[in-house]
Amino acid sequence: MTLPLRIGITLGDPSGIGPEVCALALADPALRDACLPIVFGDGPLFARTCARLGVPDRLSRVHVTAHHPIRDIHTPSLVQVGALDLSSEAIPGHPSDAGGLVQFAWLERAVDALVLGELDALCTAPISKERIHRHRPDFQGHTEYLAARFGLGQDRVLMLLAGPTLRVAIHTRHLAIADVPGALSIDGIGRDLDLLSAEVQRFSRPGRATPRIAVLALNPHAGEGGLFGDEEGRVISPAIERARARGLDVHGPFAADGFFAREVRAPQFDAVLAMFHDQGLIPLKMAHFDDGVNVTVGLPKPRASPDHGVAYDIAGKGLARAQSMKAALRYLIQRLA
Amino acid sequence: MTLPLRIGITLGDPSGIGPEVCALALADPALRDACLPIVFGDGPLFARTCARLGVPDRLSRVHVTAHHPIRDIHTPSLVQVGALDLSSEAIPGHPSDAGGLVQFAWLERAVDALVLGELDALCTAPISKERIHRHRPDFQGHTEYLAARFGLGQDRVLMLLAGPTLRVAIHTRHLAIADVPGALSIDGIGRDLDLLSAEVQRFSRPGRATPRIAVLALNPHAGEGGLFGDEEGRVISPAIERARARGLDVHGPFAADGFFAREVRAPQFDAVLAMFHDQGLIPLKMAHFDDGVNVTVGLPKPRASPDHGVAYDIAGKGLARAQSMKAALRYLIQRLA
Repeated sequence: MTLPLRIGITLGDPSGIGPEVCALALADPALRDACLPIVFGDGPLFARTCARLGVPDRLSRVHVTAHHPIRDIHTPSLVQVGALDLSSEAIPGHPSDAGGLVQFAWLERAVDALVLGELDALCTAPISKERIHRHRPDFQGHTEYLAARFGLGQDRVLMLLAGPTLRVAIHTRHLAIADVPGALSIDGIGRDLDLLSAEVQRFSRPGRATPRIAVLALNPHAGEGGLFGDEEGRVISPAIERARARGLDVHGPFAADGFFAREVRAPQFDAVLAMFHDQGLIPLKMAHFDDGVNVTVGLPKPRASPDHGVAYDIAGKGLARAQSMKAALRYLIQRLA
Repeated sequence: MTLPLRIGITLGDPSGIGPEVCALALADPALRDACLPIVFGDGPLFARTCARLGVPDRLSRVHVTAHHPIRDIHTPSLVQVGALDLSSEAIPGHPSDAGGLVQFAWLERAVDALVLGELDALCTAPISKERIHRHRPDFQGHTEYLAARFGLGQDRVLMLLAGPTLRVAIHTRHLAIADVPGALSIDGIGRDLDLLSAEVQRFSRPGRATPRIAVLALNPHAGEGGLFGDEEGRVISPAIERARARGLDVHGPFAADGFFAREVRAPQFDAVLAMFHDQGLIPLKMAHFDDGVNVTVGLPKPRASPDHGVAYDIAGKGLARAQSMKAALRYLIQRLA
C-alpha cells in the first residue's frame, strides 16, 4: 500500500445527493488530511455543487492520458470522465438518460484504476441501479460489478454493514425469503465467516487476537430445538463448529429477536453474520441511521459506500448530510491503517 | 365491564422472576389505584417475595369455593391455587417438577374466571413452556392456550408486541422461515388487519378516526418489483387493497429494512403488521427493551404479558425489574378505559 492512502471516490448519480455528500465529506479537514482523494466524475458538476453548498473546492482537475496515468496523481484530484451538460443532464432530483450513462462511466473508470492497483480503496456515492440498468441490463449493483471485475464468483464477496456499534454481514443478499433456507450451506457460511473474520480484524476490541463473531439463527427462537425449522442443527451449527476448529472465534446460532437489543446495549461481538437481508439490515439501520457504511468484503482492495440511496427528493436542496459518506471514508482509512 | 377494572394476574414460574415482577408492579400506587388486581398463585410464595424485596404485601388471601366465587372478590386479593413447598418447589433459579405443574394450575384457574366473565382482563407473568410441556404435552404457549379455551381457531388470534413508540403484530407466529411464504394468504392478512385495527383503536393518534396501519413486505426491498419474490404483488398488496376497500387505513407493503429506523424517529403509524416473527420482534426489542408488552389480540377479554422470559439466571437476586410487567398492566388499563 502506498502512502498516503489513495482512495478513489465516485460521485454517483449526478441528479442524486452523491455529488453533495462527496463535496461535504471532502471539506472535512480530518478526512482530507488522512487520505489522498481521487474523485471520478465531472469537474463543472463538482464545482457547482461546492459553490451551492458554500464549501471549498480543493480538487485539481486531471484529464488522464497514457502520459499522465492515475498512478502519477499525488494531490487531491478530480479525474474528468465524459462530459455532462449541467443544465439538462445533472438537474438535482430529475434523473436523465445521460446521467444514467455517465455515473456508470465514472464507476467503470475508477474500478479500472482499482484493479490496476492505482488506488488502495474505493468509496462509491449512491447510484441509480434502475438508471444504469437501462444502458447495461446486466448491471446488478456495485457489489456484483466489483466481484466480476476482480474475476471473483458472487459467493466470494460478502456484504457488510458497519456502524460504530454494530457490524453486520449478510449471508444471503438480494434473495426472496422463499429461497433463503435452500441457499444456506455449511461451506457457504464457513466461507463468509472466513471473509468476515479477516475483514474485521482491524476493528476487534483491544486484547482480542481473533475477532469475536456471532452467527444468527434462521428461524424464530433459533428453531426451538427443531420445533420450527431444522437449519440451525443441520447447517448453521456445523458451520460454526468447523469455523471454530479452524481457529475462528465464532459463536451461535443466536435467536435473532433479542440479540440486537442486547448487543447495542452491551456489545459482546466484533461482528455478526445474519442469515438474510432484513434480519441484518433492520437492526443496523435502527442503530446507525445516519452513519452506517456498506462494505464489500472479499475484494483484493476494499470498497465502502454510504448506506443510503440517491435521495432524489432532497437532492439540490442543501438538505443532504454527509455523515454516512464520511463514515465510509473513515472505515476505509481505519481498515487500511 | 365492571368497575373497577378486574385484572387477573398469574405469578408464572415460581422459580423464575414472575413472582418478583408481580410484587414490584403491585407495589406501584398508580397501578394499584387503577385496577382491582386478583392474583392467582401461592400466598406464602408471594409473602416471601414481598418480604425479600422489601415491598408491601397488600393482597387479601382468598380460598375460592362455590360459596365464595371470584365474582364476589372486591378487594386486591390472592387466590390460593394448589400448595407449594417453598423450601423445595419454589427455589429461585432452580425450576422444579411441582413448580412446572403449579404454574399451569394458576393459569388454568385464572382463565376459568376469564372465560366465565369474572375478570375483565388477564396479565400473565412468564411461564416455562418446557416445564409445563412435561405435564401437558399439548401446551404450546399462553396465546394458543387462550385461543383454545375461548373456542377460537389459532388463526383468529394475533400476537401483538406493544411499546410506547412501536406496536407490531406478527402475521405468522412460531413458524420455520421455510414455511412462512406458503403461510401468507390474502384472507389471513385481511383477518389480522381487522383484528389489529380494532385492537389499537384506543391507541391511535388524536384526530385519527381509524388507526393508521403499516404492512411490511416479506422480501428484501419489498421484492424490488418481483425481482426477488412475488408475495408482495400476489398476496400482500391485494390484502391491503381489500382492507382499504373495507374502510381500514392500511398502507404498504413497505420494505422492512429501513421502515423501523424511520418509524422510531418520526412515528407515522399506530401499528405495524409484520409478516414473520423476527421481522417484528428484532425492532420491537431494540426499541422497547424494558417496556415491551406481549398482547393476545382477538380474545373476548384482553390478555397481556411482559415481553421477557422466566430469567432463571437473575431470579431471587433482587435484580429483576418490573418495567415490562407494569407496562403490561398499563396496556390493559388503557385498552379497557
